[in-house]
Order: sequence, then structure tokens, then C-alpha cells
Amino acid sequence: MQYRTHTCNELRLSDVGKQVKLSGWMENVREVSGNLAFIVLRDFYGTTQLVVEDEKILQVFLNLNKESVVCVTGTVRERASKNPKMDTGDIEVVPDSVEVLGKCRYNALPFQIGRSTEADESIRLKYRYLDLRNPDVKKNIVLRCNVVTALRQAMNEHGFLEITTPILTASSPEGARDYLVPARKHPGMFYALPQAPQQFKQLLMTSGFDKYFQIAPCFRDEDARGDRSPGEFYQLDMEMAFATQEDVFAVMEDVLPPVFAKYGAYNIASTAPFRRIPYLEAMETYGSDKPDLRIDLTVKDVTDLLGGCGFGPFEGNVIKAVPVTNFNATRKQIDKLIADVEVVSGNKSYWFRLDENGEIVGGIAKFLQESKDAVIAALNLQPNTFVALSAGKKGAAQKTAGVLVKKLGEMCPDHMDKERYEFCWIVDFPMYEIGEESGELEFCHNPFSMPNGGLDILEKAASGEVDPLSITAFQYDLVCNGVELSSGAVRNHDPEIMIKAFQLVGLGEEDVKAKFPAMYNAFCYGAPPHAGIAPGVDRMVMLLVGAETIREVIPFPMNKNAQDIMMGAPGTVEQKQLDELHIAIVKDEAEQL
Amino acid sequence: MQYRTHTCNELRLSDVGKQVKLSGWMENVREVSGNLAFIVLRDFYGTTQLVVEDEKILQVFLNLNKESVVCVTGTVRERASKNPKMDTGDIEVVPDSVEVLGKCRYNALPFQIGRSTEADESIRLKYRYLDLRNPDVKKNIVLRCNVVTALRQAMNEHGFLEITTPILTASSPEGARDYLVPARKHPGMFYALPQAPQQFKQLLMTSGFDKYFQIAPCFRDEDARGDRSPGEFYQLDMEMAFATQEDVFAVMEDVLPPVFAKYGAYNIASTAPFRRIPYLEAMETYGSDKPDLRIDLTVKDVTDLLGGCGFGPFEGNVIKAVPVTNFNATRKQIDKLIADVEVVSGNKSYWFRLDENGEIVGGIAKFLQESKDAVIAALNLQPNTFVALSAGKKGAAQKTAGVLVKKLGEMCPDHMDKERYEFCWIVDFPMYEIGEESGELEFCHNPFSMPNGGLDILEKAASGEVDPLSITAFQYDLVCNGVELSSGAVRNHDPEIMIKAFQLVGLGEEDVKAKFPAMYNAFCYGAPPHAGIAPGVDRMVMLLVGAETIREVIPFPMNKNAQDIMMGAPGTVEQKQLDELHIAIVKDEAEQL
Repeated sequence: MQYRTHTCNELRLSDVGKQVKLSGWMENVREVSGNLAFIVLRDFYGTTQLVVEDEKILQVFLNLNKESVVCVTGTVRERASKNPKMDTGDIEVVPDSVEVLGKCRYNALPFQIGRSTEADESIRLKYRYLDLRNPDVKKNIVLRCNVVTALRQAMNEHGFLEITTPILTASSPEGARDYLVPARKHPGMFYALPQAPQQFKQLLMTSGFDKYFQIAPCFRDEDARGDRSPGEFYQLDMEMAFATQEDVFAVMEDVLPPVFAKYGAYNIASTAPFRRIPYLEAMETYGSDKPDLRIDLTVKDVTDLLGGCGFGPFEGNVIKAVPVTNFNATRKQIDKLIADVEVVSGNKSYWFRLDENGEIVGGIAKFLQESKDAVIAALNLQPNTFVALSAGKKGAAQKTAGVLVKKLGEMCPDHMDKERYEFCWIVDFPMYEIGEESGELEFCHNPFSMPNGGLDILEKAASGEVDPLSITAFQYDLVCNGVELSSGAVRNHDPEIMIKAFQLVGLGEEDVKAKFPAMYNAFCYGAPPHAGIAPGVDRMVMLLVGAETIREVIPFPMNKNAQDIMMGAPGTVEQKQLDELHIAIVKDEAEQL
Repeated sequence: MQYRTHTCNELRLSDVGKQVKLSGWMENVREVSGNLAFIVLRDFYGTTQLVVEDEKILQVFLNLNKESVVCVTGTVRERASKNPKMDTGDIEVVPDSVEVLGKCRYNALPFQIGRSTEADESIRLKYRYLDLRNPDVKKNIVLRCNVVTALRQAMNEHGFLEITTPILTASSPEGARDYLVPARKHPGMFYALPQAPQQFKQLLMTSGFDKYFQIAPCFRDEDARGDRSPGEFYQLDMEMAFATQEDVFAVMEDVLPPVFAKYGAYNIASTAPFRRIPYLEAMETYGSDKPDLRIDLTVKDVTDLLGGCGFGPFEGNVIKAVPVTNFNATRKQIDKLIADVEVVSGNKSYWFRLDENGEIVGGIAKFLQESKDAVIAALNLQPNTFVALSAGKKGAAQKTAGVLVKKLGEMCPDHMDKERYEFCWIVDFPMYEIGEESGELEFCHNPFSMPNGGLDILEKAASGEVDPLSITAFQYDLVCNGVELSSGAVRNHDPEIMIKAFQLVGLGEEDVKAKFPAMYNAFCYGAPPHAGIAPGVDRMVMLLVGAETIREVIPFPMNKNAQDIMMGAPGTVEQKQLDELHIAIVKDEAEQL
């Protein structure tokens, strides 16, 4: 049998008079009398109103629970009172027959489909198949699918080949915790699920592939966070041979903005080239390496200006200021700001205002009266300007100022052009730092990124000609609206440079090999320079739909406790299965007692 | 720096005189004299010949091992002797500078790149990054990527949404062996990797999604075979709501042939509609439910004709004949055929010929002389026809005849139109069978397929009105050139029909629920009729490239022993990791002693 001639979102005035067949879920029944009822029929595409005027047919509907699946044949009729909010609101269908395709057994559902988002999350996830029937929930998943498809198409158009890399692979010696898979045929040995296809994509470059990408599943056995699902997540993983940092930037600047503008809640996105901000400058100017460039506020260093003003917390500390013009918030809002910033940053912050009359008032004003003119001049303050302040060691003062920028941007619509996607690149990350605990030279971020200056600069650092702390790496972060979408790098593809980079921190070839043996071996057979990045798909989709939790953009998410309660995962297994895998369950001591 | 102005497959006569920059692997150096050498530079796209005429530059090349990566700048020159086999064979590049980008440390490689396929497989897999540099190896992987991209695009164009389903999920109670993943936060519990996203795709249908597909990773912990890699494999998994068997057929008939014709070794593929062959007819006519329709040979039942001829093995058995006209094979070839068929089928087979003179000769000819005219008439034999024969119980006789058809097709080019992709659907699989061991009614294939006739036919079977063995299921196999690409089905989406189907084999609702609890629960909330299929990507690509083993179409395959020796997977892990996962390794008894 054929189940439909049209979908539930298809019929228009031009179809009036046609005999049609529709199938869908019975979303609602409004019985007006014994031979008149209005029924909303819903499928994936939309809804259509049925008008039942036949007693027998009405009886069929009245005997069904909502959310039962039916197939009706009937005639399309123009509606007397049209509904402009519905795509099919100009018409209604008068059924002359109905067939029940799938009964809903239950009269009471765990939640009302159209209001599932108000239900408790554990109930939503248990009945995810009902939750997903809610058009508001479904649309995020559809958007995710469309975004992934658009990203794939754009990468293909840029000459990238989507190559699938193994999911059952080797445990990596660093990074997050691995998911392990006991190997039946190799007692005592384990596969690991990949935390990312990093080694494989670099091996592909060494294998002579030129432009690789993959919507890659990644697995990290870490606890859940708002923007991180336990278990698996997806990256738009890409890598290019014979490529520089700028080549990677050019691809991303071409691929991402159209997708963001088309599918996002906001329809404006940065155009190429995105702003490049050196890491140290970002920390100095925005108090963050994830600046939200929709906010026009910046951080000024006022250590020299205010260090000696007599305010205790400033003494001997680095002091940062965030001036905000046209400031209209109430005292209550300011107090809330200072409190919120302390929650996020762990540090107190301070403030004063230059009022309409040009007087410094509020907060720490009394410490500034003597130096008033100097303060106004140095910060170029206009009347009605709020100045937020942070103090502490350099890093802490910067980070607190960064939180102030963010919170003030959210408070002041004048200073935040919210409805757009503002991208930037954070570049020139330092290669080395002095470890806080060790007091020794350590790698700052990724030891496998290419140092700017190559072997030459490392040799100069080794011989004392150059300060190793001044060496930067070809490493970069892609940031959008204050969210880090990905780190990326020009990789260090040269074993000689790798060993030299490791020697500077007192390590050697064996340490390099221990980290990534396959990749290191491969690089000894002639590797091309290569670079890449891997923006998180889940994070991008969250930005696009403005979702609060990552679970809103995943079809079947686990809960925060790493369980799929709908499927019953994880679950117990049979002893025979454990025996085959040569493993046993270890009960913890409390349980054993 | 910019590494190239052109790829190694890009320069043509029209580029002569240009200053260019190329990067690639130094594939070969042919030194003619101290200041003349020809070098082949290779990248992903192709090769270009460099002519070094400068002593200093030549010295750089001569100091490098083959497979080192270099970047040259130079001038494009027309070649004196052109090479029509090379895309860039009209030109050569004369370098005026060279930079070494990635040294190959080793003078001797584990195998010659261009002849890697001749190396031992374990060496190839260990050095897969070198093996993949061989253009012949690489091209299969590139083809796979292009096929997957083409399939995705076609599915998108048909209105299917690619939805990613979980990889960490629940163990399934049947089917193949699961890969298990210990759950750190749930001591004693395990995730399982999905054997297929079957439950999830049916849950998506129940969630109101309409047309789903996914290039889906599937995991089965089974031993390796030629066409099955240990570990993971991929399916073009699809499912449609409100769809019949014919709807699924129409999509596949539209999606697959263009991809096969474009990317396959042969450029002809069946057009829609593919032949539909009922299962029983396929067994009767081709001796197989995976007929290779490129072969024009069919099986005839000759039980009545030959049962009484006096040849021992025929007595009391079913006898099948495969006549082959224009048969020219030698006696030696015939003997080999019979031997090969016995190896594959485990059964002896027999033969005779009708020679050019119309005489029955060879094989079992002496038993047929009496009934010669009847045999010739019944089988409508022409002179110079070979007749292969099988005998045994019905199933064995059919299957042996099926092997005869296949082998005879390969032997006789007249009877096999080899260079094409011939698709067919095997339909009308029986729902039930009498179990060989139990002697009781059992499910024949998939208990969750919809019986043709629905609840009605099951009730009639229950009441004795209908023979349950006559009930067929809406289940189908997609076969191409004798290879089963996939099973599929109209699913049984109705709990009532499910329970009835189970009751006929003495099971009940609890058994249904135990198999697929999430899906069964979901179906009780109103499920649409739905149907789908999941052709194996690896198998399709094997057919397209004509590969002998599945490892030729996977970028980083495991070996037959389920190891990735390049990556060292599986490997040992630290005790701390096991402790966190609440598991211990169980040494087997022999080891413990």
C-alpha cells in the first residue's frame, strides 16, 4: 500500500478539491459534537488539520490515544477561517476513511509532546523518542544534520577528501582518559577508542595524502560539562600537506562563515580574513585568549597609574581597568556584577564612575580624588563612564579583567553587537614557559607544534643567544563569540627539530618516540610540512542554535552520569562474555565487605 | 613560506617558460653525469620530471635518500622527448633552487614504493604510510572516499537526513559478539559498540524522523574473513517512515547504479527496476539466494528424469542439472571443475556431454544411454552441450548446483557477460521454517520483519487455516554480481503483530521485550510503518575496485589477527587504568601454572 500522496506540510489552496492520502501522528483531537471534530495530524514535515464530519470515522479517532499513527484518505477543502501561522493553514482535509497504523497504548504520556522541554531531563532522555517528536527539539537535530552536510560539502568543494580513520586503535600515553576495549584474541591487551584522529591524520599526510578531512568521532572518558558530553563528540577534523598557518586559516575563513550565517540564530558572520590576535596581546587587551569580539570593551593597564593610590588590594599588584562609556546600570546591578565576577574568576574586582558632572564617585573613588585629573587624562574618561578594576598577579589581574569585559558586555547592549558571529584567530602562542611547580622550562601548550624559526631558533636558544621564552609556536586557536572552537597548529614534521625542541626541556629522542611511536617512525621516512585544525561540531552547533547544554544538539545523548537510560547503557554483561575477553570485574572494598 | 605554485600533476605545454615552485617526494634520481640528472618528483596528484643541470643543486639531491620531501623552484621547459603516459609528460622543470623539507633517514626502504603490493602483507601494514604512497594502493582509498561522498550526496538529494547515532551504547542480546567498553563511573557495567544502528534507526522513525541515513560504523568482534575486517566496518544505513518495500527499492535503484557505473571497474550497471526474484525461485533457478545474473546458466530439476537411471548417488535423491551450450572445455578443465565444486560445496557433482554428433558421452553417460531421447527432449539439449549434475537432499542439491552455475560461468565467457554490475532483489523470504535440530516451528531469518498479510495471516496460521510455512516476510536481500550487499526489511512496527508472530513459535511478549527493550517500549507509543536496508560500504567498494581482500579498501586496516601493528593496537595498559575501570586481567590456566 501507499501511505501518503502528500506530507502533512504540503497541501495549499491550489490543492483544494483533490483526493489525498496523509499519514502521521494524531497530535490533537478537538471534539465539537458527535459528528464534528478537528484533528491535528503531524508528520516530520509539519501539520495538517483534519475535519471529521462522519460519525463512524470520528468514532475511530475517539477510540485512539493521542500520538497514535493513522493514515487518512480524504478531500482537501478551503478553510473558512484560515490560520496564517500554519504552512497548511489555508486548507483542511475531510477524511472519508481512516486506517490505524500504529496505536499509542497509553492515554497518559510522560510529558506533553509540545512542552517536552519543560519536563525533567531524566524523563526526557528516557523517552527521547517522544521528546524528539516535539518540533522545537527536533529542529536542533535537523539543524545539526544540515550543518554537518554543509560542512562536508564545503570541504569537498575545497578539494578535501573525507577519509575515515580507525575507531578501534591504540591507547595514547597522554591527554584525557581513554575508553578501553578488551581484545578477545589478545589476552591482557586492549584497544582504545581515539581521543582524536591526530596521529592518523598526520600519518595520512606522511602517506602522501594532500587534503584530509573527516567529521570525526572522538572519545574521552571525562566527566560531563555543559559543553562536553560524556563519551563521544565530533570534530570537523582537517589537515593539509605543504601548508602554512595561513593556508589553514584561508580554508576555515571560507568554509565556516557561510554555514554560520545560513544556519545560525544570527545571520551575520565575520568575513575573511578573521582578525589575528597574538596570544600575549589577547591576554593584555581582552584579558582572555577567547575574546568575544562582539563586545567593544578592552582592558587597560593602570598599574603605574593606580598602584600608589593607597587602596590596599592594589599595592604591589598588577592593576587592570575596563572603562565603559554611557554607563547606566544601577548600584544593585554593579554589586551583582562584582559578585558574579568573583564567582567566575575567584577574584574580587573594584570600580568607580566618572559621573555626569565629571566627578569620580562610587566604589574606590575616595582613593582617587588626589590623582583625579591624571586618572581622567590617562584613561581619556568622558563623563558617565564606569571603570571596572582588577588587581593581582599579572595573570590573575588579566583573567579577572577578561571576566569583567564579558559580564559588562552582556550588561550593556551599547557595547555588544550581539546578533552576529565574530571570529578571530589567536596566534603566536609561546612555545615554552617556566613551570609553576617545577620552576624549570616546560612546554607551554603542544610540544608537537612547529616553533616559529624552526631548528635555527631552537639552536640559538640552546646556545643562549635567544631566550627560549620568546619563542612562539605556529599554533592557533579559532574563537567565535568568546567560545574556543578549536586549537590547531603547523605540526613539527621534522624528527631533528622535534628532538631539539625536546632537548631544551631536558628530554630526548626516546621521549618523543614514547609519545607517538607510529608517527615518529613515519616522519623518519620523509614527511611533508603540514598543518591542520579540528573545530568541534557539537560546540559549533550549540553556538548556532544558542543551546544551553550539549544534549540539545545530540540525537541520543547520554545523561551527565554517562548513561543512556533509554537504551540501558552501560549495562551488565554475561560471565561468558567476560571470560572470552579474559577480564574480571573488581568489586571495590566497601562492596566486598 | 609558500610551498608550491602548482601540484606535480598540473604543468602543461602552456606553462612553458613559467617560474614555478613544486613540492613533493623524491621518487627517483637518474644521474647521467656530474651535472645532469633526471628526478621524478611525486605528490598526491601526480609526478613531474625535474632536470638538474646545476652541479650544486645536483649535489643536494644526491645527498638525499629516495622518498625525502623537497621543494624546488625552477623554470618549465618543453621536453625534447615527450612522455605520453605522464599527464605532465610534455614538460620538465629545471630547478634553480631546492630546499629539503623532510629527510628520509633510510637509504633502504622496507619495500619499493611502486611495488609495495608485492611485499608481505604484515610488512605493508606495519609501514602502511609507505604502502599508501604507492599510487596503485592509494587509488583504492581515494575511490572509497569518492564513493562514500557520492552516496552521501545521492541520499541527501533524495531527501534523507544523515543522523549520527551513538557509538557507546548497550550490549545486544543476539547477533554477533559485542565489543565491550568498561564504564568507569559504573563499576561492573559495560558499554557495547553497536553491531549496527538498527535499534537507533527504528527509534528515529518512532521519534518522527522520516528519511534517515548514515554512513554508519558497525562493530562485530568476529574473526576475519576475506570480505570482513576484524573490528569495524561501514554500512550505508537507511530507513524510511511510511514506506513499503517498493519505496526502499526505488531509492536504492536510483542511488546505487550511477555510483557503480561511475566509480566501478565496469561502467555498466542495472537500471531500475532491478529484477525481483522470490527466495524459493532463486534457490530453484540459480541454486543460490545470491545469484550472479551476469551468468546466463540456470538450474533444472531432473529428479523425475534421472532418479531411476541406475546411477547410485541419484537414488532417492533430488537431482539438479545445469546445461551449458557451446561447451568447449577440456577433460582436464572438467575434472578441475568437479574438484573445485566439491571444495566449495562439500558435495560431489557429476556430468555428461551431448557431443557434436548428438551422442551422450563422458561422466555418467553410460547410465543415460537407455533414456537418451527422453533426456535430450526434457532438457532440450543441442549438440555440444555440457550438463553438470548435483544430487542430494533438496537444499544440498540446490546449493551444489548453485556452485556449478558460478564456476561454469567463470569458465565459459560465452555464458557470462562479465563487465557489468547486475543487481537483483531476493524477496519473499519465508517467515518460518522447521528447525533442523528442534523439529519445531522457528523463525527463518529475522523475527522482527513484517509478515506479508500482517496480523490477519498470523491469526489464520494460529487457527490452522494457513500453513505457517507458507507465510513470507517483507524481507529482502540486495545482490550484485553474486555478492550479497545487504539484507533489509519492512519492519514489524506493531507490538500486537510482534507478539502474535512470537506466539506462533511458542514465545511471548517478554521474549520480544528482552530482545530490544527500548525499541519495543517506543513502539507502544505509536510507531509508523517503516522499512530500510544497509548495504555494506566495504563490500561495495571491493566490488567496484575488484579487490581480493577488504584490507585493500580500508586506509588503516587491522591484520587478520585483529592487530594494527603500525599503531601497536591492541596494547597493554597501566594498572591504574584497569583500577579506574574496576576490572582485572584474567590469566588463563596454562599461564597461571
